[in-house]
Amino acid sequence: MRLREALSRRAEWASTLSIMAAVGALACQPGGAPGAPSVGGGLAQLMQERELTESDVMAALKTYTPTGKLDEYYLFASGGHSGQVLVIGLPSMRLLKVIGVFTPEPWQGYGYGGDSGALFDAGEKHGRKMRWGDTHHPALSETGGDYDGEYLFINDKNSARIAVIDLRDFETTQIVTSSLIENDHGGTFVTPNTEYVIEGPQYPAPLGGGYADIADYAEKYRGAVILWRFNRETGKIEPDKSFAIELPPYMQDLSDAGKLASDGWIFLNSFNTERATGGTAEGKPPLESGASQNDMDYMHIINWRRAEEMVAEGKTKQIGGLPVIPLDAAAGDCLWFVGEPKSPHGLDVTPDGKELVVAGKLDTHATVYSFEKIKGLIDAKKFVGNDDYGVPILPFEESIRGQAELGLGPLHTQYDGAGNAYTSLFIESKVVKWSVKDLKVLEKIPVHYNVGHIVAAEGDTVSPDGRFLVSLNKWAIDRFMKVGPLLPQNFQLIDIGDGSETMQLLYDMPIGIGEPHYAQIVKADKLNPKEVFEPIGYNPRTRAKDPNAATSGEERIERRPDGVHVWMTAVRSRFTPDLIRVKEGDTVHLHVTNVEQAKDATHGFGIGSHNVNLSLEPGEHENVTFVADDPGVYPFYCTEFCSALHLEMAGYLLVEPNE
Amino acid sequence: MRLREALSRRAEWASTLSIMAAVGALACQPGGAPGAPSVGGGLAQLMQERELTESDVMAALKTYTPTGKLDEYYLFASGGHSGQVLVIGLPSMRLLKVIGVFTPEPWQGYGYGGDSGALFDAGEKHGRKMRWGDTHHPALSETGGDYDGEYLFINDKNSARIAVIDLRDFETTQIVTSSLIENDHGGTFVTPNTEYVIEGPQYPAPLGGGYADIADYAEKYRGAVILWRFNRETGKIEPDKSFAIELPPYMQDLSDAGKLASDGWIFLNSFNTERATGGTAEGKPPLESGASQNDMDYMHIINWRRAEEMVAEGKTKQIGGLPVIPLDAAAGDCLWFVGEPKSPHGLDVTPDGKELVVAGKLDTHATVYSFEKIKGLIDAKKFVGNDDYGVPILPFEESIRGQAELGLGPLHTQYDGAGNAYTSLFIESKVVKWSVKDLKVLEKIPVHYNVGHIVAAEGDTVSPDGRFLVSLNKWAIDRFMKVGPLLPQNFQLIDIGDGSETMQLLYDMPIGIGEPHYAQIVKADKLNPKEVFEPIGYNPRTRAKDPNAATSGEERIERRPDGVHVWMTAVRSRFTPDLIRVKEGDTVHLHVTNVEQAKDATHGFGIGSHNVNLSLEPGEHENVTFVADDPGVYPFYCTEFCSALHLEMAGYLLVEPNE
Repeated sequence: MRLREALSRRAEWASTLSIMAAVGALACQPGGAPGAPSVGGGLAQLMQERELTESDVMAALKTYTPTGKLDEYYLFASGGHSGQVLVIGLPSMRLLKVIGVFTPEPWQGYGYGGDSGALFDAGEKHGRKMRWGDTHHPALSETGGDYDGEYLFINDKNSARIAVIDLRDFETTQIVTSSLIENDHGGTFVTPNTEYVIEGPQYPAPLGGGYADIADYAEKYRGAVILWRFNRETGKIEPDKSFAIELPPYMQDLSDAGKLASDGWIFLNSFNTERATGGTAEGKPPLESGASQNDMDYMHIINWRRAEEMVAEGKTKQIGGLPVIPLDAAAGDCLWFVGEPKSPHGLDVTPDGKELVVAGKLDTHATVYSFEKIKGLIDAKKFVGNDDYGVPILPFEESIRGQAELGLGPLHTQYDGAGNAYTSLFIESKVVKWSVKDLKVLEKIPVHYNVGHIVAAEGDTVSPDGRFLVSLNKWAIDRFMKVGPLLPQNFQLIDIGDGSETMQLLYDMPIGIGEPHYAQIVKADKLNPKEVFEPIGYNPRTRAKDPNAATSGEERIERRPDGVHVWMTAVRSRFTPDLIRVKEGDTVHLHVTNVEQAKDATHGFGIGSHNVNLSLEPGEHENVTFVADDPGVYPFYCTEFCSALHLEMAGYLLVEPNE
Repeated sequence: MRLREALSRRAEWASTLSIMAAVGALACQPGGAPGAPSVGGGLAQLMQERELTESDVMAALKTYTPTGKLDEYYLFASGGHSGQVLVIGLPSMRLLKVIGVFTPEPWQGYGYGGDSGALFDAGEKHGRKMRWGDTHHPALSETGGDYDGEYLFINDKNSARIAVIDLRDFETTQIVTSSLIENDHGGTFVTPNTEYVIEGPQYPAPLGGGYADIADYAEKYRGAVILWRFNRETGKIEPDKSFAIELPPYMQDLSDAGKLASDGWIFLNSFNTERATGGTAEGKPPLESGASQNDMDYMHIINWRRAEEMVAEGKTKQIGGLPVIPLDAAAGDCLWFVGEPKSPHGLDVTPDGKELVVAGKLDTHATVYSFEKIKGLIDAKKFVGNDDYGVPILPFEESIRGQAELGLGPLHTQYDGAGNAYTSLFIESKVVKWSVKDLKVLEKIPVHYNVGHIVAAEGDTVSPDGRFLVSLNKWAIDRFMKVGPLLPQNFQLIDIGDGSETMQLLYDMPIGIGEPHYAQIVKADKLNPKEVFEPIGYNPRTRAKDPNAATSGEERIERRPDGVHVWMTAVRSRFTPDLIRVKEGDTVHLHVTNVEQAKDATHGFGIGSHNVNLSLEPGEHENVTFVADDPGVYPFYCTEFCSALHLEMAGYLLVEPNE
């Protein structure tokens, strides 16, 4: 692949003339035109003025995507405590969209008076109307272990919730939660045909809510992993077909589903098998040291097909609205442990499903487990003992194929299609490429700085693409212009080619709108998003034409027992009706339909001094209900610049006082 | 400037070899190295594989900014109905940060339990806790008519509010509002030394709130322009030193402040001098046609220094908490009109302050007004009559120098340093470059699509830079990968050089996180943002060390009459204390200090199932108060990935039930 030969040459500016000479040589080949020095002078001068090296030029040309040309991959990243999902195009590293998920976002009209309110209501926790989330691990839906481009799932670590995003329209369509667990982390991830969307816990608490003193941590605090059943036809998680498995009060962490050879199984890391509970102000060590005493924590090995059977057999108790397989029943029937060194974090099943790579934050190795060995040990009931909760523990040495010495602070591993693994090294601020087969380091590339997750193109599937890897760096420090004490994160795009050449850093992308934890990269042609909503009057929350859709020429205002109903249309550049007269105290029900079908002909609908703003994409319908409790004159208007006479797309809500 | 000669060559791929030949020729100059065909082959193959033209290569190299190299300009864009401000680096067109302004944003810990709550409270309108805004026109603070890099102001069109952002830390520090007007648009803009931050209205309503029927529109609805006094020392708007001027119920629109020759004056466009009020469901024409009947609307010419005197003379009445100069007093004393064709939108004072360019949405011209002529007519009291509200109208033909025929749908005008103007043409989807002196079109460049505002580097100052212009396009349609029916906007970066060469489109930047209306571009070296907060315990909302700052070793929990107070520190990787025990119903006061001073060592603080999340940058302090009304066990944790043992930075809020 000659294209890559250029890249392995890391010439600095001092040698930049070599690129020009080389290009010049090419020009002497058949078809080459005679010189036009001003153009070449422009290029050379530009390189000099902007201090671009030969390597920079190649990186620029590998990422620059001219107007009207499309990117090749979608990257879906969690937004961390922004609560949202980021959609980024590769290789240009341009942010295409931020999808509202757990946090209201008015530009999208998400959580500002329309039908999305029901999503937030469904996500209430302990009766609290939660208005943020901490999104961590996006998971694309899979068919046969490959991304199918249909759905995206994402968890909220803070309040233990899961959201469903429909990739036909990039809209959040469901938020589910239970009172079983207070916090999640290891998830979302999906089984190979998206039978289940899996939510693993993090910080233990009494299951189902309720109070227990921290002194009773070992006895009364628990984790639980929830297998949320997903119905691909309806696009919905079905809580009544979902179940959970009780887990010990360790801190379960990153997780992955088996595939191919290991289909039917899931694997969860854990840390703090010490069951430390902090107490920094009470003379105890902080959790960071209390939880780092043991040389080994436990990988949780779960046979989810067996767990399904146990649920069918009624071996559950109902907690927090879900059937839960109790820990004592699960232990040795669908749940086993094996040791993991040390303070494990990342757990990533290889593309063929035969092996699992675990990296320990305080270890320098990646440990490669053999699923065949694990399965053999389970079948042979060959255990070294049980943990305090009766879970059988497999012998560590007999479960692994070997270890690779990678460096300081290894976290997460991704794969290419050539048998290589790529692991982030937090403490070294590097990505290390290594051979899974040989357990040998091949190359390291510095990243800037403090890398958490990394993600490769189709890197979580049975058939990774290689080509691109993105390093999700937590710190940026000196990479970008100063923007105050709160710095952006830094996504670095790395060319990993077909796995046979040297890695090249291509692009630094600041993320100043959240703190992504993980991401997945999917080929663009696997998605086929809608460009307008059809039929006119479509409600993206209910996935159907709304019964209150308004029609041009039949707009009207009716006073009914439950309040004043307004059926309104929006079209460039007017609302009909544009004058809404109500009395103080009236409940107002607006039914607003954008009756356009032209791509990009979106209208907004905002009401002055009200927390109401809709984004009505072509064909979309939304319903809004509010109480007109304050007499006055409130302009409403189209908040999206839709036409030359966009400012004239306005009207008044007139709230007449009661005398 | 040889660099640009290359750019004027719009060679397509068919002629791409010319660039190579040219570069080859260069290599034969002294210092040129002999060929290295593999490198050149790489470049050529890359251009072919990615279908990059010669022009694309130059554009890529003019924008690509390698890792660790910094951009040259900040672009501050409104986020539209996202309610926020976007910070973008030029020429790389990377989004560096989104600043929370009118909408809560949890990644920044903005509006999620900390001291920023007071900002939102100050922005209450009609007693409603507004949680979004529609930001339109950012304005950088100025000294002598030049950006000084100290502050940024931004308006909320939806609820008529103004926010102040301190560019020392990129934090919103103040939101002001009054009940005088319901909606704003023409603003913010500032006087040349930032004496005032000016907020012009848009949709008329009864001043000071309250109800009046739409039938009384001409008599009882009004606009008003507010001059908010700004104190540069404190960084605050001073409402008690601010005032307003009552305006007729036209729809006042974009505005600008005079400078140099016209310092002391402000100018506001208006449309809908027809005073149409819609009524689409009542058999009346929609506003878009009702407001487009007149051939001329009125530019509002205001002598703000005279208005200041009138306030001092007590020629005001108090409305909505502000002294307001009544329309009948203002007319002919500090307020005059002059006609503007047709449905005017953009109004932009030339860098020397001598002229004003107005573009009419339904006109094909830009009209160039002479301030000297306007001032002469006012001084000579040469009027053609008064409007219905008694405001004297200057003769149009005697107020202008001339008109330039630009094209369809001209909106906004920017300037370079070479005497050229650039005007957006909405209907044509083009930017037109024209000579202000000659009133002649020089060139048009297509943009994609439906451009609203455009912005040039330092383009609103007395000394524009040229070099870069950004076209804020409303529609993107086919420019980016599909992301569902809600499309991003498209910011297109255009190289305008020193004004002497052809414009070149350099970069398409999708904006999938809001709908920016306007932006300003400032040289990077004018800003000097902090990288950490000092001293430790600094509260960015009060701009001082917080009296409740916590100190390492002196953390504590105290029960007081007003509740349980917790003085907590955050440091990698622990909170002290990490166990908070309270009783059901307790009011909890958290005082949390990040005691670190390392750049980028930010900690988050999120509480499970609570709408509490802080972003504690190095040295920052925040206070949170909430009622622990639901017994249970709530994990709290650092929501920002701060260290290898970040997951261990956690604790519990234990709410013991009352028995």
